[in-house]
Amino acid sequence: MDRDKILLTPGPLTTTLRTKLAMLRDWGSWDSEFNAVTARVRKSLLAIVHGEDSHVVVPLQGSGTFSVEAAVATVVPHSGHVLVLDNGAYCKRAAKLTNLMGRRCTVVDFGDHEAVSPAVLDDKLKADASITHVIMIHCETGAGVLNPLQEVADVCAAHGKGLIVDAMSSFAALPIDARTVKFDALIAASGKCLEGVPGMGFVFLRKAILDGCAGQSQSLAMDLHDQYTYMDKTGQWRFTPPTHVVVALAEAISQFEAEGGQPARLARYTDN
Amino acid sequence: MDRDKILLTPGPLTTTLRTKLAMLRDWGSWDSEFNAVTARVRKSLLAIVHGEDSHVVVPLQGSGTFSVEAAVATVVPHSGHVLVLDNGAYCKRAAKLTNLMGRRCTVVDFGDHEAVSPAVLDDKLKADASITHVIMIHCETGAGVLNPLQEVADVCAAHGKGLIVDAMSSFAALPIDARTVKFDALIAASGKCLEGVPGMGFVFLRKAILDGCAGQSQSLAMDLHDQYTYMDKTGQWRFTPPTHVVVALAEAISQFEAEGGQPARLARYTDN
Repeated sequence: MDRDKILLTPGPLTTTLRTKLAMLRDWGSWDSEFNAVTARVRKSLLAIVHGEDSHVVVPLQGSGTFSVEAAVATVVPHSGHVLVLDNGAYCKRAAKLTNLMGRRCTVVDFGDHEAVSPAVLDDKLKADASITHVIMIHCETGAGVLNPLQEVADVCAAHGKGLIVDAMSSFAALPIDARTVKFDALIAASGKCLEGVPGMGFVFLRKAILDGCAGQSQSLAMDLHDQYTYMDKTGQWRFTPPTHVVVALAEAISQFEAEGGQPARLARYTDN
Repeated sequence: MDRDKILLTPGPLTTTLRTKLAMLRDWGSWDSEFNAVTARVRKSLLAIVHGEDSHVVVPLQGSGTFSVEAAVATVVPHSGHVLVLDNGAYCKRAAKLTNLMGRRCTVVDFGDHEAVSPAVLDDKLKADASITHVIMIHCETGAGVLNPLQEVADVCAAHGKGLIVDAMSSFAALPIDARTVKFDALIAASGKCLEGVPGMGFVFLRKAILDGCAGQSQSLAMDLHDQYTYMDKTGQWRFTPPTHVVVALAEAISQFEAEGGQPARLARYTDN
């Protein structure tokens, strides 16, 4: 192996060398040392959204889309009715996976270049009492539109509807505060603004809805309630974790914290 | 970063340093260079089971269980009826995920220390014509029982039933020959006998059943037909791939081939 080649780190520099170096060790999936890494990652993730009192965080194997699908499967009952606030490709994907798994789904189209409107959402929720959950993408990557998270969450809360937020491209770069923004589920992944390597997602679930989520998922692998319950009891993942990805994320989060957290990361991205 | 610490590679040595070093580079998920790695991995995997003429191989994000669930969701129609040949924990898991996704499922219990019996399977298939698919774990890791793959495949073929094989702990160490063993789906993962790092699985699908699999999966993320079709057209994964895991697997496969392939690996494991 050519050492120069390693140190030159060709290719897009989306993760630091330090983060990648963390992967140069093997870990036993069920060892207490690895469980400690998982626990540390989960603790740090909760702190990023100030969710310690209100939420738990459940990591999941796979890409971010796996975690979005798992969130819908776990949180929305079979008799539920999901309203997707559609302003881009990821919204359409969320609607597709919701339909496929057999949950009723209605889409409000805001076009691909406009933010979703809390007033329109308010009207929709007034007009159709059967809606149980709302899905919104915090920041649609296609056109880069940032949606009004606080206002949408407030409308959902006023109507007593559950809010599921895909925060894949905003988490850790834009402020999200679980103390003021009420959401049932919020999803992000290892490989985006946290600057870890891709291979796992994670979902923040509101503690108050956890018990009601038991047995709702029609997927075993994507059952976040089952994943949470097992992890809470044993400290372990239910199925083989992507150990190197998890350890790289732990290292990436250390650097994120040392850099100054979300405000510092946003400042760096704004400069770029 | 302490260089000694890196070179000492503490912890269980389940992957070689060379495999881990492959992860010291970032790759664009949609770059042609990364697509070439995916293509090379898929070609090598097919060669291991001599499946070039009869099968395709579809990689999937997540742990091996995600791929097992995806195989069932993709291959078994909603009106299907699955018979699980149960002789251990992974069989029970396969039955559980089949039931959860709403496919009819019957379990034949062989205890946890006996191989499954092709004669009993033959009787079951004679007795219940509604069975469409059979699930078997090639080698149950709990008690380490090796099941008679060839004989079970022959019985399934004689009855015209589809066979789904979980070969998680046997693939690349025990011989599996798609030219003589007829299976609809066979599942393994990156982190087992191929000695890659964990984070992805892959499923061999029989070409003859591919078209019939379209639209069968109730999961978007786990739809192997959709993953295959998209990859076949674009060379890319549908959703963000675990790039570092894929590249480590490519490197691990190079070493597997250089070592002498499956017979050499089996010989090494037998020596241990």
